[in-house]
Amino acid sequence: MPQDETPQLKATAPLRRRGAAMRRAVLDATVRLLAEGGLEAATVAAVAAAAGVHETSVYRNWGTREELLREALADYTDQAMPLPDTGSLREDLRRLLTALGAFLDTPEGPALLHLSIAPATAETRSGRDAYWADRLTRAEQLLHRAAARGEIRPDADPRAAVEALMSPLFARHLLLGEPVTPAFVTALVDLVLDGLAPR
Amino acid sequence: MPQDETPQLKATAPLRRRGAAMRRAVLDATVRLLAEGGLEAATVAAVAAAAGVHETSVYRNWGTREELLREALADYTDQAMPLPDTGSLREDLRRLLTALGAFLDTPEGPALLHLSIAPATAETRSGRDAYWADRLTRAEQLLHRAAARGEIRPDADPRAAVEALMSPLFARHLLLGEPVTPAFVTALVDLVLDGLAPR
Repeated sequence: MPQDETPQLKATAPLRRRGAAMRRAVLDATVRLLAEGGLEAATVAAVAAAAGVHETSVYRNWGTREELLREALADYTDQAMPLPDTGSLREDLRRLLTALGAFLDTPEGPALLHLSIAPATAETRSGRDAYWADRLTRAEQLLHRAAARGEIRPDADPRAAVEALMSPLFARHLLLGEPVTPAFVTALVDLVLDGLAPR
Repeated sequence: MPQDETPQLKATAPLRRRGAAMRRAVLDATVRLLAEGGLEAATVAAVAAAAGVHETSVYRNWGTREELLREALADYTDQAMPLPDTGSLREDLRRLLTALGAFLDTPEGPALLHLSIAPATAETRSGRDAYWADRLTRAEQLLHRAAARGEIRPDADPRAAVEALMSPLFARHLLLGEPVTPAFVTALVDLVLDGLAPR
């Protein structure tokens, strides 16, 4: 065996993986490369090599690099932030925001945010917008469940609530450079549930 | 007079402006260049030429290009978003967010946001963080006035409220690619004032 053949390449010879296992290996490799080397590192060639598949398999399954990156990050974020279902909206929201804050502190979090704000063509922009719209719609489920339990006002706007809760965490990372503390998560959830006005 | 001397250069011969007029000309030129050509266009040399001052005057007054850009944008944003004082917190917040939404739709808005998220050295990052902290502290004044009028609960967290109100507008521009509509501004203000929980 040549000296320069790495264990990783040995374990992932091209075309040995198919179907769901191939998709899993490619998605995981994409997130790993993004985390280690940023956007530049996650080329289709590098992903294919790391996952042990041919580049053509990547293009056949995802079409474009942008689509691959988006699916890999959507898959990863939805696993990193499972939707809680504790029976209490306050507790559900606290857990969701705590998980989002922790995610933004991993290398993958900034990679995702910077992918999202990179200069976009019309095509990648529509994909990016769809990615974020999907994440928000997913989080809105917590509010729909709470509405069914009578925990929120019938005229409440779930979309505005999700944006008021999640956007400050993005802004702290992107603009303020401030940490998302447990105290901030609690203050934000209490604010959105109870409002500023006296009761 | 040479053919290639432009009217602009004629009107702003170096060293003709001093003190407050010089500072005003430099700050205005900085924002104009940012709006027209992005960050790359707003070099100290280009700003000095457009304002009709020597580069040394810029360095003497602002120290670094980063400091100049930040002061120019802080000055511009505070003028673009004067703090309303209508006597009603709901109306004050609606006006502030409407002005912020309009500002983000100008060329200067994205320039400011992208300046803020560009890769930062420790020095420019601390300046950026101070810039945003100043803007938030400024907006908190609306909440302190409302507290003095008894319009909000004594235990309300003004900083969390300001972040819950302003961050969704930044996130719509940076991540979602969605417009800040009057309906969204109203929904956000009503949410933060009234809360999700039934009253």
